Amino acid sequence: MKKVGIVMGSDSDLPVIRKATDMLDTLAIPYEVHVYSAHRTPAEARDFALGARANGFGAIIAAAGMAAHLAGAIAANTTLPVIGIPCKSNTLDGVDALLSTVQMPTGIPVATVAVNGGANAALLCAQILAVEDTELAAKLDAKRANDAAAVLEKDARISEEFKK
Amino acid sequence: MKKVGIVMGSDSDLPVIRKATDMLDTLAIPYEVHVYSAHRTPAEARDFALGARANGFGAIIAAAGMAAHLAGAIAANTTLPVIGIPCKSNTLDGVDALLSTVQMPTGIPVATVAVNGGANAALLCAQILAVEDTELAAKLDAKRANDAAAVLEKDARISEEFKK
Amino acid sequence: MKKVGIVMGSDSDLPVIRKATDMLDTLAIPYEVHVYSAHRTPAEARDFALGARANGFGAIIAAAGMAAHLAGAIAANTTLPVIGIPCKSNTLDGVDALLSTVQMPTGIPVATVAVNGGANAALLCAQILAVEDTELAAKLDAKRANDAAAVLEKDARISEEFKK
Amino acid sequence: MKKVGIVMGSDSDLPVIRKATDMLDTLAIPYEVHVYSAHRTPAEARDFALGARANGFGAIIAAAGMAAHLAGAIAANTTLPVIGIPCKSNTLDGVDALLSTVQMPTGIPVATVAVNGGANAALLCAQILAVEDTELAAKLDAKRANDAAAVLEKDARISEEFKK
Amino acid sequence: MKKVGIVMGSDSDLPVIRKATDMLDTLAIPYEVHVYSAHRTPAEARDFALGARANGFGAIIAAAGMAAHLAGAIAANTTLPVIGIPCKSNTLDGVDALLSTVQMPTGIPVATVAVNGGANAALLCAQILAVEDTELAAKLDAKRANDAAAVLEKDARISEEFKK
Amino acid sequence: MKKVGIVMGSDSDLPVIRKATDMLDTLAIPYEVHVYSAHRTPAEARDFALGARANGFGAIIAAAGMAAHLAGAIAANTTLPVIGIPCKSNTLDGVDALLSTVQMPTGIPVATVAVNGGANAALLCAQILAVEDTELAAKLDAKRANDAAAVLEKDARISEEFKK
Amino acid sequence: MKKVGIVMGSDSDLPVIRKATDMLDTLAIPYEVHVYSAHRTPAEARDFALGARANGFGAIIAAAGMAAHLAGAIAANTTLPVIGIPCKSNTLDGVDALLSTVQMPTGIPVATVAVNGGANAALLCAQILAVEDTELAAKLDAKRANDAAAVLEKDARISEEFKK
Amino acid sequence: MKKVGIVMGSDSDLPVIRKATDMLDTLAIPYEVHVYSAHRTPAEARDFALGARANGFGAIIAAAGMAAHLAGAIAANTTLPVIGIPCKSNTLDGVDALLSTVQMPTGIPVATVAVNGGANAALLCAQILAVEDTELAAKLDAKRANDAAAVLEKDARISEEFKK
Repeated sequence: MKKVGIVMGSDSDLPVIRKATDMLDTLAIPYEVHVYSAHRTPAEARDFALGARANGFGAIIAAAGMAAHLAGAIAANTTLPVIGIPCKSNTLDGVDALLSTVQMPTGIPVATVAVNGGANAALLCAQILAVEDTELAAKLDAKRANDAAAVLEKDARISEEFKK
Repeated sequence: MKKVGIVMGSDSDLPVIRKATDMLDTLAIPYEVHVYSAHRTPAEARDFALGARANGFGAIIAAAGMAAHLAGAIAANTTLPVIGIPCKSNTLDGVDALLSTVQMPTGIPVATVAVNGGANAALLCAQILAVEDTELAAKLDAKRANDAAAVLEKDARISEEFKK
Repeated sequence: MKKVGIVMGSDSDLPVIRKATDMLDTLAIPYEVHVYSAHRTPAEARDFALGARANGFGAIIAAAGMAAHLAGAIAANTTLPVIGIPCKSNTLDGVDALLSTVQMPTGIPVATVAVNGGANAALLCAQILAVEDTELAAKLDAKRANDAAAVLEKDARISEEFKK
Repeated sequence: MKKVGIVMGSDSDLPVIRKATDMLDTLAIPYEVHVYSAHRTPAEARDFALGARANGFGAIIAAAGMAAHLAGAIAANTTLPVIGIPCKSNTLDGVDALLSTVQMPTGIPVATVAVNGGANAALLCAQILAVEDTELAAKLDAKRANDAAAVLEKDARISEEFKK
Repeated sequence: MKKVGIVMGSDSDLPVIRKATDMLDTLAIPYEVHVYSAHRTPAEARDFALGARANGFGAIIAAAGMAAHLAGAIAANTTLPVIGIPCKSNTLDGVDALLSTVQMPTGIPVATVAVNGGANAALLCAQILAVEDTELAAKLDAKRANDAAAVLEKDARISEEFKK
Repeated sequence: MKKVGIVMGSDSDLPVIRKATDMLDTLAIPYEVHVYSAHRTPAEARDFALGARANGFGAIIAAAGMAAHLAGAIAANTTLPVIGIPCKSNTLDGVDALLSTVQMPTGIPVATVAVNGGANAALLCAQILAVEDTELAAKLDAKRANDAAAVLEKDARISEEFKK
Repeated sequence: MKKVGIVMGSDSDLPVIRKATDMLDTLAIPYEVHVYSAHRTPAEARDFALGARANGFGAIIAAAGMAAHLAGAIAANTTLPVIGIPCKSNTLDGVDALLSTVQMPTGIPVATVAVNGGANAALLCAQILAVEDTELAAKLDAKRANDAAAVLEKDARISEEFKK
Repeated sequence: MKKVGIVMGSDSDLPVIRKATDMLDTLAIPYEVHVYSAHRTPAEARDFALGARANGFGAIIAAAGMAAHLAGAIAANTTLPVIGIPCKSNTLDGVDALLSTVQMPTGIPVATVAVNGGANAALLCAQILAVEDTELAAKLDAKRANDAAAVLEKDARISEEFKK
């Protein structure tokens, strides 16, 4: 199976990244994690992107905060699907990272998920890899069913609790 | 090749959709276009999503404005990758559609592109389909090279114009 | 008396919902509480909405955060009045939920209250049920008088405290 | 049938109001239209609200822009359901009116619809009046079916157009 | 000397109000404090405003949060200068109160100060009363000089601390 | 009667200023108009402010766009009441000017009116001058009555038009 | 004298750039203009930045819209001062470009000017070059005096016009 | 070497300023620190700016919150480069300070860095002083290399940690 590349712009983004790696672990999808900054190590970020397809990656997750250019910088150097996670920092509540990630110019898309949305970034990678992988698609469908069952279990418990 | 499904919530979103279909035409990727509203025709939107994988789709684009639930409603009923295009309407400059599309809860990702970003939604689909399609990947790389050349041609013309 | 249906998208919305059920308890209005997610259990959310009028509901409250589609998904499947409560989540201060709830397209209104406005959602249901229920209308008028008296009692105490 | 009261804060809101009255005409719901300003004619706005239930109104629509206090001022003086329409003015894109209308304090709810959402305000009134009016409920269900059919007709035409 | 009227919409606004009363105490300006809600006790708010000029008030401060209509409701019923203080509540960071206070329609101005700006609201009242009161104007000028001296004392201490 | 000083940061603010001077003309309040920029002619802006009380001014209106410092710069150099008008410019819809004008630090208030609110700035000056001027207060009350009558005339016409 | 490098992300930014080149022409500061996209021609943008100091540039202006990464991408590859101009595009009023440009992480500053602020970007470069260039500093002081005189000329004309 | 002038509007901005002075200490750039308020001590702020070039300063950092006029007030009185740091205060998350600092009118640029961006303000000054100072430029290049090495060290550690 192709690997997922995960790049964070700063190690302060680790809690968000762990939500992604936990999800990939659950789905048994292989991945690599890197800390590359679009601004402090632009060459390494670029080289990772340029080589990603040849190195067996099928999708790349990039997480960054503030003027979050990382996902865009990766996307500029590969035609693999790049998923951007805008990370909330100390000011502006993540709006800066969200707009810096999603408002990409024509030609270089970044598939953006919610602010701090690490788990969904991983799921999106899984869904991309599952397009041609029936087994993984079945796993995703099973996970959906489990998630639904968890909601309905809560519904059963809470709707009962409110009955008088 | 797997098809791209394109769903718009209203025919007022057609200009944005045409940017997507033009891009898919350029790349010779097959697609179907539908008008389904998450609110006015929820059953049809759901049925389209539920059957999409079986019907040969590999990715789905959903475009909607205002409280743009369409991409999320599609995503809730398929584990195919769903790309959301937030459309600008008469008020609030597209911020409502952007937040309604991108801020999805854990478990149901929507790959969101820029406001009115029809062309990039199509490109993202192409990139997804190209993960296992070397020929399409090569086309995308060629397109990138063409886009770069077009920028550099403008650079040549404009940098010359400003020389005195 | 017709019942109020209360649906939350996640059990993390319970504190907001309790403000609603406390208010309904005060007014002796019957209700049912459910946890249904527009995205994780779309079928259950839809079925609840489709059957609501026949099952004796007179109004439905739907509370959700982030890309809050729940109220709209309920409203898409019933012509009962649907009251939407946008819930504040960890980022963006509730703006995402507010816009996702209130900016509904023509044809499918959601009666939106303030961010985290659980008590007012319940009151709005009561006011709707009171349109044809003189006794409940009298209760609401009495509650208003009590609320006003409470403000004036505070005024008496505080205006005195500031007199020197 | 109970009437719908419609109040606008300024005659510049007339285009939005006409969307409401057109909808009510379609549904054969009786209504009265008034121009009362929360700030310029507060006494008339208050008197209208205070007498509304006795005068046969079942719900009130209030439309205003900028620091849109009209819906709140009406709601402060009646326990009938009050629907607020935030109107876009020359600056700030309707955000001021939206927040001024929806962020009501506990005790005095305003059922807020989208910016400039005249038609939905009327539909919401109809849904409220239909809680105890089976005939009107049937009309609303029929209208929903018509709206859905119109979307599907567009789907048929447009999906065909994009087939090659 | 004419009195300053201070009205808060809720006793939760007391910390902001105390900044105003402390400032008025410093300047020996008489005042009265009231808790009147534009929505829960509209009659008392109105009556206070209607009688304010006759009752010896020269300016009125109104503090409220969320859909902050209090300053506007007071201003609608008096031609005395009304100073509005937008108060930050649990969501939306005071933006709702700011826009609800400042964006008044033509004819009914509210002199708006910063979010939670209790001290400045009091100072503005003092400046208004000082237009025809040379002694108070001298006090305000002296206070300005004191404030400046306090800044310069900090400058002396801090600029020294950073010298090496 | 004391004069009103009117300062605009740029002659592009003239349309907003004319709304102020028209209102002052209606009320027969004397005024002077100046173009002084807080940034391009800071000395002249300061000197105007420093001399304003001695030169017979009773209140000052300052209108500016973008990073609108003019009202604050005037207020820093006088203890006369300063009314700030945030002006909308080509980008950001006046939010920049609004926040730059209203969010003043403790000690230096600016009485802020709505974006482009020229007429209300003039009315606020009139209300300030009327605190000790019974005749002007009576004029303002009469104007209010006229404004109310104009609304009610529109109400009569429009409510009739919608009667069928 | 060192040159100013001017880079725009797209030729649609030309009107903003011309405001910069006009200002540099006025000040007789040499410059080069290029069209390089951070995303479509990242290598050229990087190479331009990497070589800028050696090629005689003293400061670089970068103008881009949407997720405006250009200034940051340039700044990541040079320690010359980089001035960022956020450009307004069709949606979101330039807020996306502003936040994408100004919210740079520690280590890689971008000197950001106002949305579409081409002239000020050029002036900032001039001010930077003038730190060690007395003649240019004198030119800038003279320009300031001219700007002030222009304001005062307008003041004279307009203040006269409003005298009655 | 020319000095950097650092001015803060209030001593509450000290934590942000220390990030700037720490950076300047690291680079051995001389500086002076002052507390001057654009509103409370406008004369001292102006005098500092007017004399800055003659007093051996090469760039000025100005940090302020809320309606942050300090950087603009300094910039209005010198043609030295002025770097503005918008400081986050208790409300509005720094958006007020950001817009008040960056949206300067044509003629008076302020080089704005991120909200609370003290370290980057210092770096920008260093980059400005390094335009004509090869030794300082080399230091900045070395610091960049160090920063990159620190990122890559984290990458090595974290990428290893995630290998299983």
